[in-house]
Amino acid sequence: MNEPARRPSADNPIRETDDDARALARQLMADAQFAAVAVLELETGMPLVSRVAVAVEADGSPFVLASDLSGHSRALARDGRASLLFGEPGPKGDPLTHPRVTVIGRIEKLERGDPQHAARRDFWLKKHPKSKLYVDFGDFHFWRMKVERANLNGGFGKAYELTAEDLRQAGA
Amino acid sequence: MNEPARRPSADNPIRETDDDARALARQLMADAQFAAVAVLELETGMPLVSRVAVAVEADGSPFVLASDLSGHSRALARDGRASLLFGEPGPKGDPLTHPRVTVIGRIEKLERGDPQHAARRDFWLKKHPKSKLYVDFGDFHFWRMKVERANLNGGFGKAYELTAEDLRQAGA
Repeated sequence: MNEPARRPSADNPIRETDDDARALARQLMADAQFAAVAVLELETGMPLVSRVAVAVEADGSPFVLASDLSGHSRALARDGRASLLFGEPGPKGDPLTHPRVTVIGRIEKLERGDPQHAARRDFWLKKHPKSKLYVDFGDFHFWRMKVERANLNGGFGKAYELTAEDLRQAGA
Repeated sequence: MNEPARRPSADNPIRETDDDARALARQLMADAQFAAVAVLELETGMPLVSRVAVAVEADGSPFVLASDLSGHSRALARDGRASLLFGEPGPKGDPLTHPRVTVIGRIEKLERGDPQHAARRDFWLKKHPKSKLYVDFGDFHFWRMKVERANLNGGFGKAYELTAEDLRQAGA
């Protein structure tokens, strides 16, 4: 242990969750225009990563807009297990020192008949105005993650394990 | 089909691979400083996405530098199945119109005794000079993907399925 403050031990590399960690994770999610999503590929079970546009409900549940034709939608229709990576580095510096959070859970398709569809669509279009070109295409649906837990990396060696409750906005 | 040129049919949404698609995929990989990696989580088998710094060998094989303590390293040590997402959107515009490529294969740990280690380390440090702070830490290793195939998305509705051969640089 040459740098104990910056480099937690191999035995316990996870730091204790505090309010700063919770606030950082929420901010990374709220700020994100897009995320990387990992799913289990339909035909093979391989872990498949792709990009999705994203928004986050007040209770901390991320949701995405995706075409039924996409590989991740076809995978999620059979097996909702997934994770989402939020927090994009800028163009400079070591990308591994930029904070990011992996949110883990199950993603379910939301039908247009959902009573919240109109409100969700409005919320989405405020964040992603360009998607009005395709938000109403018949093959596009919203999909929402039921969050189970999250891994926050606040920069090199600053790792935290968060609960779904940790990601909830105050008052939600 | 209102826009056949921009919106391939549901029956066959994949376009025929051409030299422009191959060149775009190679460029996205060569330009990337980092990528999102999806693996199968060790304890649960959940698809887990996280961020890794990345470089690409001349034969099209991506490789990463990662700590043995990271969740993705511990997962890959047991099951090398993985995918890597290359191609980061800029801060403006619809992120789903920015090209990106998902490269799918198996990732294997490279030991320091590997005869190519010194050359690989030099190549890596030219691309990622700030990682000299930790490249020689005992728990850091290079991990290389044996590519099986790739999904290229050249922008909205422009999908291609590429082979490992398609990703090889000319002359490699």
